[in-house]
Amino acid sequence: MSEEALICAVDGGGTGCRAALATLTGKVLSRAEAGPANITTDPGGAVLNIMTAVERAALKLGPHAPKLEHLTAHLGLAGLLGADQGDAVAQRLPFARVTVSDDQKTALHGALGPRNGALLAAGTGSFVARRWKEITFFIGGWGLQLGDQGSGAWMGRELLGHILMAEDGLRRHSSLTNTVLARFEGETRRIVDFARDASPGDYAVFAPEVVAAADARDAAATTLMEKGAAYFDEALAMMDLHPDEVVCLSGGLGPHYERFLSPTFRSRIAPPAGDALDGALYLAQHLAEDSA
Amino acid sequence: MSEEALICAVDGGGTGCRAALATLTGKVLSRAEAGPANITTDPGGAVLNIMTAVERAALKLGPHAPKLEHLTAHLGLAGLLGADQGDAVAQRLPFARVTVSDDQKTALHGALGPRNGALLAAGTGSFVARRWKEITFFIGGWGLQLGDQGSGAWMGRELLGHILMAEDGLRRHSSLTNTVLARFEGETRRIVDFARDASPGDYAVFAPEVVAAADARDAAATTLMEKGAAYFDEALAMMDLHPDEVVCLSGGLGPHYERFLSPTFRSRIAPPAGDALDGALYLAQHLAEDSA
Repeated sequence: MSEEALICAVDGGGTGCRAALATLTGKVLSRAEAGPANITTDPGGAVLNIMTAVERAALKLGPHAPKLEHLTAHLGLAGLLGADQGDAVAQRLPFARVTVSDDQKTALHGALGPRNGALLAAGTGSFVARRWKEITFFIGGWGLQLGDQGSGAWMGRELLGHILMAEDGLRRHSSLTNTVLARFEGETRRIVDFARDASPGDYAVFAPEVVAAADARDAAATTLMEKGAAYFDEALAMMDLHPDEVVCLSGGLGPHYERFLSPTFRSRIAPPAGDALDGALYLAQHLAEDSA
Repeated sequence: MSEEALICAVDGGGTGCRAALATLTGKVLSRAEAGPANITTDPGGAVLNIMTAVERAALKLGPHAPKLEHLTAHLGLAGLLGADQGDAVAQRLPFARVTVSDDQKTALHGALGPRNGALLAAGTGSFVARRWKEITFFIGGWGLQLGDQGSGAWMGRELLGHILMAEDGLRRHSSLTNTVLARFEGETRRIVDFARDASPGDYAVFAPEVVAAADARDAAATTLMEKGAAYFDEALAMMDLHPDEVVCLSGGLGPHYERFLSPTFRSRIAPPAGDALDGALYLAQHLAEDSA
């Protein structure tokens, strides 16, 4: 095995970095992790942690450890703001060839693998994406303030808004809304206080409860799941999928939308082939082929 | 004129305090202003500015200046969180008799004067209220994060969300959305950046443009006004008004909803009798009568 024939993939985000080294055919030889890569708030620290993860993965190959300057790499980084920021990161890395994208792109390629189709990603945030041949399309992912419809954060915020409207007599309480209101000691003021400083992650804590309540036919929870699904239906419809394209659901919440999606898209659902790190491998592989 | 026969009204908020001294029949003898009253973030400073405004109003009466310990007063304070906080403020004031409420209550009484009816208040925030005989009902006013539907802040945030959805192909652009997008140099990233730290006041800056565009039959602006009006219709319907009750519109945005409200409520619209300071006078007057 020649050391030049290796590719490197990185999935970096606010909670940590993962790196993998693989052959040109995509066979993973080693994996490693390191600290967070907050590319916007701490670009220096991000590059340091990315390189730590890559070096750890390389060290695991012992005498077969590749020289980093010989690697072809792709990095998918959460929160990347445009191509400029990606280029700035790329210039600080030692690889022979490297591309940098946000983690939506790596999530899409990871989920689809070699298939054409769309990804409905719903975790704390949300977005919908499609790859057709090598062209990619993205919808949403604007963040909780102005978008992220159907996401866990959106769902928690909608739930609390629903509770306040129920207290105003404008919506109906349900078992779920009564349970959550009781956790705020029945006081709307405490809900408003919570919302004042709540991060997307704070709101997303309620999402698993909404999912469970919807499974138990809770009316308020069902309404929320349907409202989220209506957004995803609209976004998927905009993608104009060909008959052979699949729809993958990812994130903590994505798979739970399955039964709420319109039959058109439900019938296309297929398990994701992999995650964002797999997508970074896929992109590194293609970069290596293009450069060959 | 006996000095005991005076009442005092205060309208206090984050941008300043206003005080008025009046006779028991509500005839205003003097008015004065002072600095902000942020009752939650700076209760000491708030009480100081409230008293400065009251003392300035008293000084204007020269030799007829009343002793504050003889006054009956009502204070309406923005952002007051419940009765406990009102009592805490009341205990630090020198008046013979004093009640403290939030400014929603004083706005309601000020708008209605002696009439029964409802108030649709839409400025940076929003709420709907009703007084029937001496009973008051309030809906909304939960803040932008979880409520304030139809408010200026809500409208600005909805507009930016609409622009992002239009960029995604999920909504239509209009003259208004194109104009506002151009102000962000056509870059959705700049809109997302703006939203990251935007206060309700920052979002509300867009409301006058939405109003003007709706007047010019802009489709996106009209949709937003209709969506806000639908919320107010729902809240007013919940109030279950008697046939003789009026509907007052207040705040920078309130009157602009007139033509978007359902005919049921549009036919009841009557000009507000006064503002929150007038409402505080009304309540001080009733407190003096009750104590007499």
